[in-house]
Amino acid sequence: MELTQIAKRLEQVRKTNPLVHNITNVVVTNFTANGLYALGASPVMAYAKEEVAEMAKIAGALVLNIGTLNPKEVEAMLIAAESANANDVPVIFDPVGAGATTFRTETARKIVKSAKISVVRGNAAEIANIIGEDWTIRGVDAGEGNGDVASLAKKAAQEIGCIVAITGKEDFISDGEKTYVVRNGHSILTKVTGTGCLLSSVVGAFAAVEKDTIQACVSALVSYGVAAEMAAAQTEANGPGSFQIEFLNQLAKVSSEDIVKYGSVGTLGEEKQG
Amino acid sequence: MELTQIAKRLEQVRKTNPLVHNITNVVVTNFTANGLYALGASPVMAYAKEEVAEMAKIAGALVLNIGTLNPKEVEAMLIAAESANANDVPVIFDPVGAGATTFRTETARKIVKSAKISVVRGNAAEIANIIGEDWTIRGVDAGEGNGDVASLAKKAAQEIGCIVAITGKEDFISDGEKTYVVRNGHSILTKVTGTGCLLSSVVGAFAAVEKDTIQACVSALVSYGVAAEMAAAQTEANGPGSFQIEFLNQLAKVSSEDIVKYGSVGTLGEEKQG
Amino acid sequence: MELTQIAKRLEQVRKTNPLVHNITNVVVTNFTANGLYALGASPVMAYAKEEVAEMAKIAGALVLNIGTLNPKEVEAMLIAAESANANDVPVIFDPVGAGATTFRTETARKIVKSAKISVVRGNAAEIANIIGEDWTIRGVDAGEGNGDVASLAKKAAQEIGCIVAITGKEDFISDGEKTYVVRNGHSILTKVTGTGCLLSSVVGAFAAVEKDTIQACVSALVSYGVAAEMAAAQTEANGPGSFQIEFLNQLAKVSSEDIVKYGSVGTLGEEKQG
Repeated sequence: MELTQIAKRLEQVRKTNPLVHNITNVVVTNFTANGLYALGASPVMAYAKEEVAEMAKIAGALVLNIGTLNPKEVEAMLIAAESANANDVPVIFDPVGAGATTFRTETARKIVKSAKISVVRGNAAEIANIIGEDWTIRGVDAGEGNGDVASLAKKAAQEIGCIVAITGKEDFISDGEKTYVVRNGHSILTKVTGTGCLLSSVVGAFAAVEKDTIQACVSALVSYGVAAEMAAAQTEANGPGSFQIEFLNQLAKVSSEDIVKYGSVGTLGEEKQG
Repeated sequence: MELTQIAKRLEQVRKTNPLVHNITNVVVTNFTANGLYALGASPVMAYAKEEVAEMAKIAGALVLNIGTLNPKEVEAMLIAAESANANDVPVIFDPVGAGATTFRTETARKIVKSAKISVVRGNAAEIANIIGEDWTIRGVDAGEGNGDVASLAKKAAQEIGCIVAITGKEDFISDGEKTYVVRNGHSILTKVTGTGCLLSSVVGAFAAVEKDTIQACVSALVSYGVAAEMAAAQTEANGPGSFQIEFLNQLAKVSSEDIVKYGSVGTLGEEKQG
Repeated sequence: MELTQIAKRLEQVRKTNPLVHNITNVVVTNFTANGLYALGASPVMAYAKEEVAEMAKIAGALVLNIGTLNPKEVEAMLIAAESANANDVPVIFDPVGAGATTFRTETARKIVKSAKISVVRGNAAEIANIIGEDWTIRGVDAGEGNGDVASLAKKAAQEIGCIVAITGKEDFISDGEKTYVVRNGHSILTKVTGTGCLLSSVVGAFAAVEKDTIQACVSALVSYGVAAEMAAAQTEANGPGSFQIEFLNQLAKVSSEDIVKYGSVGTLGEEKQG
């Protein structure tokens, strides 16, 4: 994948300001909205079953996140997804905490079975638990598992039947056949809540402007990771509070030149380093 | 309107720390509370129908915001508004996203019909959609409409029967007869979520200390806009993350001298520039 | 209490990253999660009655906070507390706004009666209202009361039958017999929403690594207060926005040396100053 193509997609997000409809958890709403605004997208949060179908229909992407799920919102998610599916709006799913409780695991499985999902993005434990693989999870933070993450991404993509992006120290993005690896990002992201959730919404923003979903997904991960690296370079010594704010700045500032210079993406076996 | 009067009202907010009861959306709760604290007001969020009447009764102002509405919270809003009305507590209404979905439009209309509202504050699209004018809205961000915004503010004030404040590049505040224009603020406010919502709550804080509602509303808009300008002057080059934080700082710091020096308010045809 | 012991407990939190399950209010979710991550703990928010028992069971501590309570979440809190009690997971309770409305007061009393609470942390008004003492409260901010706060802490600890921590200008922590006083912290904490709520969650993080609950509680208050002082020293002149961010930085940075140097804790009558 050419880094210049990734940079063009980022510019496309900024130029067209896609509307991203989020049904997300109460911890990350503010950070998600500010991150999407910073990137150049237009966020909307709408949760009531009375309106989600209408909102999802006009959106460029729908993002479902079960971080603080309850039965009512799950119902709204399914209604929204049905509307999105009927109107060719891509649906991104973030299975926060799948594996941590039975309710989360079952809800995650129900969502990937009931709706046509374009991308599932999560950590290794969440993805493993959706497809019934053995992988521990601790609250909403990934624990340890067996086997390699790249294979897990590929297998999950085959079983769920959509693009699967497993993010962590390295990110693996698979459609079940081809698997990309992205080596951008920074460990301080794990000290700020909602950085995974915002990433899923950023995938939504890219999916709204790029029909080739795996390209959209990889482009989102590279852009996000480069912005994080740039923010970390300036603020890591200060701490996670400063990083969080500078990261919002960098989502607005990261340039095509930065993407080309710092982006690191490849298919397994043949990687391209910026 | 004298800028020195506006400055005095700001000092009055800081001296009396009015309690502002917010029933607002899940995206902006934290930013709203921090903004009100910074300004010198005392925020409280209470949403359950079991307690909203009691909380609204002791508040200096009640702020209703439908940004992530659901039927239960709308019910609580109406109970709270009834209590506020019975106890002469001013009610500010922020019709976030009216026009974007039928549920939002109908709820907004229901609220302005069922309760005695002191001020409705929104963007042009939201206000237009409440009174059935043609104006596009995109998610919760104002789109394009016909006709001038000043006339829309005046007409809406007449139809709804309260003060209407339409904020945007310029702000228009009308009681249906007289219309003020405020030219403070900064475009970077549109890159931070909840800046409109917080403004509605700040209008509440001023309405709690000034019985002349249109004066309270204009004073809030000028104070808020000057603080935003001062924050933007320091942080615009850094990005929306830094602006967001500096804006909280400036809400606490903006002085009477700043208001008099930078405030820009006039009635249509005869403007006063600080 | 030795300050070196307090420092060791802080290091213990950082080393073991205890999972803290929060059922908290919608205003402070993000700040609470980021504060816990900064400190070194692992936050999780889970609210649905379908999953709270399972989540509380695997947690190191459960924190209940009624800042924006509703009947459904109160039900979930009681289910979670029952599970925590059955699994020897300490339960921290933050009675936000008890006394402000009948619903809050009654819910707070119900929770301390129905569940075995390890620590109740609140301001003087909240604690007084739980045990039926006369103390005014204004929204969620403490008002004025009669009598001294130390005696109130002691009496409340006896009546509720658990550790009671009343925080304010000075903090008093009592088990009904012995009462500690902590003189760390900074007044700018009152200008940032959720600093009390986060503190309750930090008490949870310490209770997860230290079985002697009053020692855990005092250690949390000292660590938190020293971090706040260090952040205030750098940012007080800038304002509450900058403080809020630097405070997150300092929760990650505050060192054993800082605790020993700046910690201020004593039992009433015999205080130890760092």
